[in-house]
Amino acid sequence: MTGDIAHLGHVEMLTDRYEESLDFFTRVYGLKLTEEDGASAYLRAWDDYEHHSLKLTRAGTTGVGHIGYRAASPEALERRAAAIEAAGYKVHGWVDGDPGHGRAFRFEDPFAHVFEIYYDTNRYAPAGADRPALKNMSSAFTGVPPRRIDHLNLLAEDVAEFRTFMETCLGARVTEYIQLDNGRIGGCWFTVNNKSYDLACTEEHGRGDGRLHHVTYATDQREDILRAADIFLQNGVHIETGPHKHAIQGTFFLYVWEPAGNRVELANAGARLILAPDWEPVMWTEADREKGQAWGLKTIETFHTHGTPPVQE
Amino acid sequence: MTGDIAHLGHVEMLTDRYEESLDFFTRVYGLKLTEEDGASAYLRAWDDYEHHSLKLTRAGTTGVGHIGYRAASPEALERRAAAIEAAGYKVHGWVDGDPGHGRAFRFEDPFAHVFEIYYDTNRYAPAGADRPALKNMSSAFTGVPPRRIDHLNLLAEDVAEFRTFMETCLGARVTEYIQLDNGRIGGCWFTVNNKSYDLACTEEHGRGDGRLHHVTYATDQREDILRAADIFLQNGVHIETGPHKHAIQGTFFLYVWEPAGNRVELANAGARLILAPDWEPVMWTEADREKGQAWGLKTIETFHTHGTPPVQE
Amino acid sequence: MTGDIAHLGHVEMLTDRYEESLDFFTRVYGLKLTEEDGASAYLRAWDDYEHHSLKLTRAGTTGVGHIGYRAASPEALERRAAAIEAAGYKVHGWVDGDPGHGRAFRFEDPFAHVFEIYYDTNRYAPAGADRPALKNMSSAFTGVPPRRIDHLNLLAEDVAEFRTFMETCLGARVTEYIQLDNGRIGGCWFTVNNKSYDLACTEEHGRGDGRLHHVTYATDQREDILRAADIFLQNGVHIETGPHKHAIQGTFFLYVWEPAGNRVELANAGARLILAPDWEPVMWTEADREKGQAWGLKTIETFHTHGTPPVQE
Amino acid sequence: MTGDIAHLGHVEMLTDRYEESLDFFTRVYGLKLTEEDGASAYLRAWDDYEHHSLKLTRAGTTGVGHIGYRAASPEALERRAAAIEAAGYKVHGWVDGDPGHGRAFRFEDPFAHVFEIYYDTNRYAPAGADRPALKNMSSAFTGVPPRRIDHLNLLAEDVAEFRTFMETCLGARVTEYIQLDNGRIGGCWFTVNNKSYDLACTEEHGRGDGRLHHVTYATDQREDILRAADIFLQNGVHIETGPHKHAIQGTFFLYVWEPAGNRVELANAGARLILAPDWEPVMWTEADREKGQAWGLKTIETFHTHGTPPVQE
Repeated sequence: MTGDIAHLGHVEMLTDRYEESLDFFTRVYGLKLTEEDGASAYLRAWDDYEHHSLKLTRAGTTGVGHIGYRAASPEALERRAAAIEAAGYKVHGWVDGDPGHGRAFRFEDPFAHVFEIYYDTNRYAPAGADRPALKNMSSAFTGVPPRRIDHLNLLAEDVAEFRTFMETCLGARVTEYIQLDNGRIGGCWFTVNNKSYDLACTEEHGRGDGRLHHVTYATDQREDILRAADIFLQNGVHIETGPHKHAIQGTFFLYVWEPAGNRVELANAGARLILAPDWEPVMWTEADREKGQAWGLKTIETFHTHGTPPVQE
Repeated sequence: MTGDIAHLGHVEMLTDRYEESLDFFTRVYGLKLTEEDGASAYLRAWDDYEHHSLKLTRAGTTGVGHIGYRAASPEALERRAAAIEAAGYKVHGWVDGDPGHGRAFRFEDPFAHVFEIYYDTNRYAPAGADRPALKNMSSAFTGVPPRRIDHLNLLAEDVAEFRTFMETCLGARVTEYIQLDNGRIGGCWFTVNNKSYDLACTEEHGRGDGRLHHVTYATDQREDILRAADIFLQNGVHIETGPHKHAIQGTFFLYVWEPAGNRVELANAGARLILAPDWEPVMWTEADREKGQAWGLKTIETFHTHGTPPVQE
Repeated sequence: MTGDIAHLGHVEMLTDRYEESLDFFTRVYGLKLTEEDGASAYLRAWDDYEHHSLKLTRAGTTGVGHIGYRAASPEALERRAAAIEAAGYKVHGWVDGDPGHGRAFRFEDPFAHVFEIYYDTNRYAPAGADRPALKNMSSAFTGVPPRRIDHLNLLAEDVAEFRTFMETCLGARVTEYIQLDNGRIGGCWFTVNNKSYDLACTEEHGRGDGRLHHVTYATDQREDILRAADIFLQNGVHIETGPHKHAIQGTFFLYVWEPAGNRVELANAGARLILAPDWEPVMWTEADREKGQAWGLKTIETFHTHGTPPVQE
Repeated sequence: MTGDIAHLGHVEMLTDRYEESLDFFTRVYGLKLTEEDGASAYLRAWDDYEHHSLKLTRAGTTGVGHIGYRAASPEALERRAAAIEAAGYKVHGWVDGDPGHGRAFRFEDPFAHVFEIYYDTNRYAPAGADRPALKNMSSAFTGVPPRRIDHLNLLAEDVAEFRTFMETCLGARVTEYIQLDNGRIGGCWFTVNNKSYDLACTEEHGRGDGRLHHVTYATDQREDILRAADIFLQNGVHIETGPHKHAIQGTFFLYVWEPAGNRVELANAGARLILAPDWEPVMWTEADREKGQAWGLKTIETFHTHGTPPVQE
C-alpha cells in the first residue's frame, strides 16, 4: 500500500429512469441532494465531507459512469498519474473535474471501467437547516441509515488482471479473495486505507463490459439496516437479499435494486478495521463458499448474474 | 501524518489488586488470557490480531506501565527511532520486547509516560476451541462486547507540549481538541491512521505524574455497550458514567472502574472514520463544552479528577 | 385486576403553543396526523390501531386534558361506569365522545385529572400511501421511533389515595411502587393488562392540581431511542435526561420537553411483560432509590419539580 | 378470550441426546439449570419467574412431552378443567405436577399433544450469585439472549380442528392465520393474553402424530438475535434459517436445531402487543405467502418438512 490514495471519493451511477432513481436515493435510501444540473444529480450521505459521493447521471442505460478516488496530497496525485501512464493502462488524461472537486486524472481498467483520481476538493459547507448539531459532523443528522459512502463492486472477466490494475494504479492492497478450484480468482477485495475494503471485484459471468455489481453506503449500526429493510418494504423497493452477514469480510448487508436496476447496498462492518500493516490476504476456497453466507444463507442466484447494465441477450 | 506508525498495539496497565483485576478483565469485561507469567497477564480482545493488547502487571500502584505502538515497517521503525532521538526526548533505548513482539524502542513523553514502538510481532494463533468460525476473525467469538483495543487517554500538565511530542515522535495528527478560554489546550485527540483517535490527552488537574485517565476497547454495536452496562451492574462494577454519547468525536461510551481503580471504557464510533487526508482539527471551546455531552449529560465530577495512580494528598 | 379495561387508549395534551407542538409531534417525534379541527389535532403512532392516541388541544396552558381507557366489552364498560358511580368519585357522566370513538363515561380522580372510559372505537383505516406493507400493521412504517402509545405519568398529592382510585375505577393492579421512609407512597405503577405499566403516579411536590408528569410512546428497539436522541439534538429539542435505564420497571428511557413544555418520553421495555396473575408488587425503598437509575445516573432535579402546567409561584 | 388462562408456563422437550442437548441449552442457547433429576433437567430463562419453562427429558426420541399453561386463579383452573371434560377431549385427569408447580389437569388435543393446566407454582427464588441486581428481575442477568419463554409451534393434520380445541380448552383467541386456496387452514396463531401469540399450529405434512415444530424464547432486542447467530456459528450449531423477519406476526426470528434435532427459535416482537379486545384475526392467503418472509426471504424447504420426532419413512 503506497498511501498515495486516501479514499474512495465518489461513484457516478447511470440511470435510464432518472427521476425515479433520484426519488429513491433522496426519499427512500436517505442521501442528500447537493446540487443538480441538467445531466446529473450530486448526492452525499449526511457525514460525507465532500460535495458528493454519488453522481447520478441521466443515460440511456444503467451501470457505472466513473469511479473517483481522492489522493493523499497533490504530490501523491502526480506520482500516481505518472505511475499509471508508465504502466500502459488506457489513459484519458487530465479533466477539469466535476462540480465539487478539482482537476482529475482519468484512466481505465482493462474491463472498461473509468477511474479518476483527484486531490483538490470542496469540503461540503452545510447551511441553514443542514448545519449539524455537532461541529464534527459534516451536515445535519436526519435519521436516515447511510452515514458515508463505503465501497463499490465491479465485475471483470479476469479478476487477477484487475488486481494488478488496482495494485499498480491505486497502490491498493488485497484484504480477502476467493480462490476458485480452477485456479482463477473468483473475487478480490481491495483497500487503500484502514477500511477492510473500498472496492471489490468479482468475476463477470455475463460477458458484459465495464459492468457494475453494486454501490454501498455504510451505516452506523446493524439496527439501521434492519430498519431500512422495513422502509424498503414499505416503499415497494426490490429487496434482493439480506439482511444477513457475509462470511467474507464479515459485513452485515442488505441489497436492493434502485428503480433503474442498479444494485445498492447498505452495510455495517462493526468495529472491524485492517490495522495490521502486514495483513495477510484471507483466502476463501470454493469449499468455504459452499457453506453459504456467515449464518448459512445461500447466495441468491441473481447475485451471480445481475449486473448493470444488463447483458444483451 | 507520516504513516510510519500503523496503530496502537497495547497498553500495560498496573494494578495493586492483580487477581481481582484479572478476574474482572477475563470474566466480566470480556478479554481473553493469552498467557500469564509471574509478573503479568497478557490479554487480548477476540479480534485483536496480536499476542496481547493489554498487559496487566502486578504492582504496588495503579496506572499505566507503558504504551506500545506498532510501526508500519522495519524501515519506519528505524526512521521513528532516529527522529525521536534527534528530538531530544528522554530515550530508554532498545529493549528485547515483551512476549508476543520483537525488539522495541522505548522513550518517554515529558510527563513520564513510557512509550515503545516495535514492528516484529507474533500474530495470535488460535488453537482448539479458540479457533474462529470464520477465517477472517482472529479468534473465537464468545459473545463478549470488546472486539479490539481502541484507544487510551493520558493526563498531562501541558497538553500543547504533549501534542508536539505526539506529532514529533509518532507522526500523529490531531483530529479534535479543546481550546480553553485561558489559551491553553484542554484536551487533544490524536490518530496515526484512519481511526478518529487512538490516543487522547487531557489536562492533568491533580499534579500527578505519568497518570492514566482510561483505556478503551471498541465494540461492534452500541447495543453491546447497553448490554455490558447490565453485566457491569450485575457484577457490582462501579459504573462511573454512561452509556451516553460524547460530543467530542461522537463516540458512544461507558466508563467503569476495574477493581484496582483504573478507569476502562467501552466505546462505539459507528461508521465514523477520518478519511480526509487534509482533515481540519475540530476545535471545541469552553462554551461548547458547557452544553455537556452530546445529549446533554453533564460530565461527572470524578471524570475531571480521577486518574491512576491516585494523587497523594 | 378485573379485566374490564383493555388498555390505555389516548391522552389529551394541552398546549399554549399549538403550532409548534404539532410541528414537534409530527415532524420530529414521529406521530401521524389523522385529522385536525379548529380546537385539536388527533395523532397516532404508526401501529396504534385507533383513530388517535394523542389529542393535542389548543389551550391557555399546558398539561393533560383527559385520559381515555378502552373497555374490554360493552358490558365491561357498563360495569365500570356503575362501579365508579357507586364509589363516589366525581362523575361527569356520559359524553358523546371525540372523533374516532363512541360515547364515553367521564369521571375524575381526587386530584382533578379527568378520565374517560369507552368501548366503541373506529379502527384506523389507512388509505393511499399510508397503507401498510404488511396487513398486520396499522399503517405504513415510515422509520420513526414511536410504535404505539405506552403510558402516562400523573402527579398527585397522595399516591395511596390515587392507588385506591385506580383499583376501584379501572380495576388496575400495581406492579411496582416506591415506599418512602415517612410511610407515604412516593410513586406507583399501574397496569390493566400484561404491560408492565400503562399509568404511573408520582408524588406532587409543587402543590399543583391535576398535573401531568409525562406521556410516553413505546419504540421497538433501544436503538430507536438512541437514534431519536440524535434527532432531538439536531432539532434543538430540550433533552431533559437519558437515554438511560430506569431501575424501576427496567425501562430504557429518553425524556424531552415538547415546545410548550410538556414532558414526553420514548421508552423500550424489551421483552418484559407481567404475565404472572399473582404478581407481587415490587417495593422500592428510599435506600434503593439512592443508587440512582439502573446504571447509576442520578435523577435530574427537574424530573422531581417540572410538571405541566407549571406551578404558579 | 375467557381470561381463565394466564400464560404459557413451560414445554417439556424430549431428547435422545440428553447430555448434548443440556449442554446446548445451558452453555450455548443461554438457559439456566434450576435442577436436574435422573430423568429430566428443569431450565429457565433469566427472567422466567417460575421454577422452569423448559423441562428437558431423556427419551428414546425427540419432540414434545407436554405443554403447561398456568391458569389465572384456582377458580379459573377448575372452570377450565370442567369445560375440557365437558367438551369430550381425551382427558388424563389430575396429576401431582412436576417439581416447581402444583397439581395439574392433563388432557390431549386430537393430534396427540399432551397439555396441562395448573395454578399453584413456586416462584423461582434466586440465591447467591444468581440474585439479580434489580429486584424486579427474576434472577441474575448474565448477558445471554433469551429473556423468557415466548411460544411453541405444534403440527396438526387439521388446523381448524386444533383451533376449536384451543378456543374450547384454553379460551385462546386467534390473532393471525393462513387461509389455503383449498379451503383449509394452513396455520393458526393463538394467544391467551396480550402477547401476539404463545402457540402456533401449522399443518402437518408428514403424517406424524403429536409432533413439534419448534419452541421459542423471547429476546429483549433484535441485536441479541444477531449476536446469537454468531454464537451459534461459533459453536457449530445448525442454523436453519434467519435472522429475518416473519411477515406473519412481524417477528424477528432465528431458527436452529439443538443437538437432538428439535428446532428452537429466538424471537423478538419489538413493542408489538395485541391490546384490542376485539382484534380481528389477520388472514394470510397463499398469494400473500408467495412473497416470502417480510423482507423477501424464501421459506427454507426443511421448515415445511422437519418436525420432531422425525417421521418414520
